[in-house]
Formats: sequence, C-alpha cells, structure tokens
Amino acid sequence: MMKYIDGGVCAAKGFKAAGVHCGIRNKNTDKKDLALIVSDTMCSAAAVYTKNKVKGAPITVTKSNIADGKAIAVIVNSGNANTCAPGGVEMAEWMCQLAADAIGAQAEDIIVCSTGVIGEPLDKEPFKQGIGPVTAALSYEGGTMAAEAIMTTDTVSKECAVEFKLGNTVCRLGATAKGSGMINPNMATMLSFITTDAAISPEMLRKALSEDIKDTYNQISVDGDTSTNDTVAIMANGLAGNPEITEEGEDFFIFRQALNAVTTVLAKKLASDGEGASKLIECIVSGAADKDTARKISKSVISSDLLKAAMFGEDANWGRVLCAIGYTDADFDADDIQVIMSSEKGSVKVCEHSALSPYSEEEASVVLSAKEIQIAVDMNQGSETAAAWGCDLTYDYVQINGDYRS
Amino acid sequence: MMKYIDGGVCAAKGFKAAGVHCGIRNKNTDKKDLALIVSDTMCSAAAVYTKNKVKGAPITVTKSNIADGKAIAVIVNSGNANTCAPGGVEMAEWMCQLAADAIGAQAEDIIVCSTGVIGEPLDKEPFKQGIGPVTAALSYEGGTMAAEAIMTTDTVSKECAVEFKLGNTVCRLGATAKGSGMINPNMATMLSFITTDAAISPEMLRKALSEDIKDTYNQISVDGDTSTNDTVAIMANGLAGNPEITEEGEDFFIFRQALNAVTTVLAKKLASDGEGASKLIECIVSGAADKDTARKISKSVISSDLLKAAMFGEDANWGRVLCAIGYTDADFDADDIQVIMSSEKGSVKVCEHSALSPYSEEEASVVLSAKEIQIAVDMNQGSETAAAWGCDLTYDYVQINGDYRS
Repeated sequence: MMKYIDGGVCAAKGFKAAGVHCGIRNKNTDKKDLALIVSDTMCSAAAVYTKNKVKGAPITVTKSNIADGKAIAVIVNSGNANTCAPGGVEMAEWMCQLAADAIGAQAEDIIVCSTGVIGEPLDKEPFKQGIGPVTAALSYEGGTMAAEAIMTTDTVSKECAVEFKLGNTVCRLGATAKGSGMINPNMATMLSFITTDAAISPEMLRKALSEDIKDTYNQISVDGDTSTNDTVAIMANGLAGNPEITEEGEDFFIFRQALNAVTTVLAKKLASDGEGASKLIECIVSGAADKDTARKISKSVISSDLLKAAMFGEDANWGRVLCAIGYTDADFDADDIQVIMSSEKGSVKVCEHSALSPYSEEEASVVLSAKEIQIAVDMNQGSETAAAWGCDLTYDYVQINGDYRS
Repeated sequence: MMKYIDGGVCAAKGFKAAGVHCGIRNKNTDKKDLALIVSDTMCSAAAVYTKNKVKGAPITVTKSNIADGKAIAVIVNSGNANTCAPGGVEMAEWMCQLAADAIGAQAEDIIVCSTGVIGEPLDKEPFKQGIGPVTAALSYEGGTMAAEAIMTTDTVSKECAVEFKLGNTVCRLGATAKGSGMINPNMATMLSFITTDAAISPEMLRKALSEDIKDTYNQISVDGDTSTNDTVAIMANGLAGNPEITEEGEDFFIFRQALNAVTTVLAKKLASDGEGASKLIECIVSGAADKDTARKISKSVISSDLLKAAMFGEDANWGRVLCAIGYTDADFDADDIQVIMSSEKGSVKVCEHSALSPYSEEEASVVLSAKEIQIAVDMNQGSETAAAWGCDLTYDYVQINGDYRS
C-alpha cells in the first residue's frame, strides 16, 4: 500500500523545519529567505548536483560534507546564489557552522544550498540576525515555511509526501522543491529536499536517488538552461524503525516507488510553474527500443521552443513534434511514429506512420485549450517508455527574463 | 585580393536564375514561390543536409542526384516542404524531371529543395503552370528573383558575393540563403545555394563546403530547432577558366576564404533576421584549448533562451553567459573566464576570472541598446577562437510561433 498524504519535508517522523525573512535580498520585501530542515537524529544522506561546469560554492561544501553519507540538517537561503563571487566557499562553510551551532551539531553534517543572484558576495549580517528566529521557529509542522523560504520566481510553494509500508512498518517520505525556471535578475536554481523516516544505508540511498532523477527531475525543462546551483538532497533518519535497507530487493523496490511517487509529482509541479508558463506539457514516449532513447525523445519534444510556442497558441502543430523527435541525439528510426494529443477535454490523433493523420483543427484546439496537455508518441520499435514535462513558451517568459535587473 | 561585390547566385559567370509566383501556398498571396538556378555548363556539385532523422523527400532525391558530384541546376519551391506527406520522393523526382525538360538537361543532374508546411501533399498543378514562366524569366541578372522566391518568414531576401583571384584568373562566388527561423504554420528550413565560376573538383568542393559550414551555417541558431529540410548546396561551373583545384594548396586556401567570406555574411544575415528578432547577437570565443570547444561554447551562449531574453531587455546579464558556457558539452575549465559586451555604442567588461568585474549598469544598457551586440568570451586556456550568431528572444517570436495556423 502507498498513499499520498499532506505535507512535505516534515511528513516523515523526526524532521523539523522553519523558514523566516532575514533580509538577504537587496529589496524591499518581507519574503522568507532563510530555511532550516533538521532531523532529530543523524541521517543517511545523498545528493545530486548540476552538471554545469560553473558551480555554486555551496555545492563544493555540501559535496564535501556528505562524502561520508551522513547529514543531520539543511541550511538554505534564497535571494543570493553565492556563486561567481569572491569568498564563496568560506561563506558556505560559515553558513554550515552557523546552523551547526544553532542546533547543536557539527558543521560537517550540514547540507548548504543557496539560490538567487550570482556574482554578488553574500552578506553575513542577515544570517546573523536570522539564525535565532529560524531556529526558534523549528517545528514538526514547519515544512511549508521552509518550502516558502526557498521560492524565488516560483508562484506557489511545492510539497508532496507519501506513506508506504516496508514489511509491517509504516514509513513516510516527503519533499519540497523550487523553481526550475530561471530568475531575474540572474539565474536561479532547481532545489529539492527530500526526507524520509525509512532506514536505508547511504549506499542504497545514493543508488535510489541517482536512479530516480533520471525519470523525474532530469526529465523536466523550462528553458533548457542548466543552473549553476541545482541540487537534490535526500536524508533518511530511520525513525520509522524498519530493518535498514542495505541491498536491492522488495524493500528497496518499494522505497524507490515511494521516492518516484513524490519526485514525479514535484517534477510536474516545477514544470507547470515554469517562468511565464500557462500550460503543463507532458510528453509520454512509448514503443522505444531502449529506456534512454525514450527519455531523450520525450525530453527533446518538451524542450522545443517551437512546440512550446505552438502549445501556447493551442495549435496542434504535430510537425514540430516530429521535428523535435528527429533531432534527438539517439539511435532510432523515424519512419513509423504515431502522435496523439490529449487533455481532459478530449483526444486527437494527429500523426500516424510519421505522416499527417487527418483530424479536425476545431477539435484539436478544444483539446489544447486545457491547462495540462499530454503528447503521446508511439515510436513503434520496442517496448520502453518514458515521460518528460515542460511548459509552454509565453509572452510572460520573455517579459520576466527580458526585464532590466533592478 | 578579395572583395565583396553586388549580387548573389548570378554573380559568377554562366549562372542564370529566376523566381515566379505560381500558387503553391494555399493562400491569397502573390509571393514568389518557385525558383530555378541554372548553369550554362555542367558543374561540380556538393551539398550538406540537416541531421534531423525526419528528413524531407527532396533531400533523398538531391543526395542521389549529386552522388556523382555533378549538377547543372536547382529547382526550389517555398510554401510546402514536401515532407511527411505521401508520395514525397516521387514528387521530388517529378520536379527534377520538370526542370530538366524545361532547360534541356537530365533529371539526375538537378538539385531539388522545398520549404514550407509539412504533412501536406505537394500539388503538381501550380508547378505545371509555373515552369513555363520561370524558365522564360531565367536571366544572368535573376539572382534576386530567386532569393525572393525561397523566402518564407524571412523579412528580407539575402544575397552575398565576392570576387577573388586564383593565380591571375578573376573568379566569383555568390550565394543566397533563407530563413533559419521556423515558419508558421509548420517548420521551415535553412536553405542556401552557392554558385561559383571557379574550376574545382567535386571532391575538393565537398571538402571546402563541409569544412566551411562548421564555422558558418552550423554556428547560427534562432531557436535551437533543426529543420527536416535544411540544405546547403554549391555548384562550380569552372567558366572562370582557372586551372581546376584538385588538391589542397594555395588555390584551395583562397577558395575556402572566398567561400567563408560569403557564408559568414549570410550566416549573420540569417541570425539577425531570425523570427521576431530585434538584435543580432555575436559571441566570439577566444583562448580556448581547441577549435571545436570554442565553436561549442560560442554556440551555447547564443542559443541560451535566458541570454536571448536578457539581450532583448538590454540587460548585461553576464551570469547567464557564464551559465551557458558552463553547460556546454565539452572539456574545459571554467575558472578564469573574461566576458566583454560591446557594440558600436561602446564596450563594458562585465566578468573577469569568472566573477563580477564591476561595471556601470547605465553604461552597459547604452552598449546593449544597439542592434548588433558582440559578446567576447576569453577562456584563458589556449589560442583557439570561434564565433556564433543568434538573435534575441522577443514577444514577436512567441507571437509568430504561437499563432493558430490559418
């Protein structure tokens, strides 16, 4: 049994969180900008990071801190990415020490992340003022506060959690995520923090996370740009009391399912809240010869600016789907492709055998007037499937990203 | 000596061209949509094509026709891409036969291209009516007619030509190109036709073209989408009378320079006429360890939607430049990068040692208010350079590509 439940990073036993405003942004705003997520006991920990060669200083420090597979807390700020700025690594280490002192832990057990403008040094002053209040606010119901504090251009905070059973033990896994779109005045970041009370070894946790993101967070795109600070971190404190997962098998499989259930929901939330987005676009590829090809094709489709603009215009422009499939960097035939576009408002087959399948433009525009669009692509050359999620390309995207920094 | 001269595909000796309206588009328009480019004598010929796996039928036929390295004419239409539509290859072969009959040649010596909507069968009727008039209109001054006939969403026709000397022989090389942006209602295509009266073997012509496009047509991007029909074809009729170029050496080097001079100008024209574009963005990468890395980095920068939107907003957002450099798929260090943004209105250094180089936002916005922006990136790790050209991302791009087909 697995079921979705309310909550996010505090859904699992023994995790407190809080978020406060401490003034990291150089702006007149009272938006929360500093968060803590703290486990009652030491956790197995794992993380994956951006592949961008220009990396934020917090990534260097987090990597080093969780090299031993252990962590007890996360400190994260929005408003400044602590990237391409002098003294970044020292600042990130200082943030870890600040959090460790506040909660009575060691700096090397802290995960640190930052998101916001790059190229501007991060000021210690707001942190000194904020650390007291954020520590005081820590609560087992504080997940949403933390979810709000990590937002940048996100329009809604994003949380998801599930309850599942390992043997007879009830476990929980929850998470928060922010902003796959990029931020004015500079670039922002995709961050996600996942917590669970299941007991699992650092090795298996790392394996679960690295397998999972291939089908979830790595399959979303708002604008194809990869940030300098992207980080997904997971902490497992074992307080549910299940026998620790230390190898593949049924428990690991169930844990992977629980993780996937949460990260898939959050991936879709990130895509549908992409900058300026008015629609969520889901591309489901089936009939591929191998999994990786299915992933690449679906991602290519939802990444195409031309298709994204067509979806904004509610135009069933299947030629752009075929075109985006065609330039995918993978090995496949493009001779027998079927494309169906659907939504809660209906479904139209627009392409069969890689050619036009006659359809009513009127019906198609009704289907595409919905807020969530599915594009189902059947490659007809195997049995593998994958999905990817993106959003439409709108006037608002251009406006958000074209405005002067100010 | 080499100098730019007026003209395009008719600049070189012995090339006639013409373009007429014959009604291929299903629309009330008198835009020219059918062109011929014809050499007085048989040419060495070479072409390069889209790497998209979904390929237009004309590409299949052209490939086959110039497999022997010979061609005498080009027939090309706009308004319908003859792609993903039944009977496409037969139709492209029929077009070759039509052109061959009209000019007294063999069908297998004809290059055929189509650009426009995909998925709709190409109707023979307009061609039957147009072939007489277009043949009658063939002229040694007809280059611009042909340049106009291949336009789709292009706002201006594009031609360029040079005169150069091989030994004591004056030679000419000219070309036309169209639309790197994609077209409503479906995708369009980058097409370029290059003609020269220099004598050069098919092998060396192929070599010259395939080397050249790495630094020119392959270094432009409007929206990252690769069309199904992209074709660049070159024909050399030898009427200048130079000793045929059959190997590398000084003559080949000069020929390559002439070709590069023309294709670089056309590449920039294509980028600055990208759909909805209001600015040409040129990224020049220097100090790279190898040429291919320099090419990839420059192309990554001009392809970034985030940077393109920032350029539209005239915002010196160097963080986005670093970010786009960072996710380039190549092997390099990102620790000591310098970025200078300049235009006819001035120059600002915005990044040094991969960190902020303090500058005046006011000065920067003056620099970026120009219509042509240069972004100079010094990687500080070698001596190789490359350039790439793109355009800004504007409201108009979204509008052009988001509108209903109608």
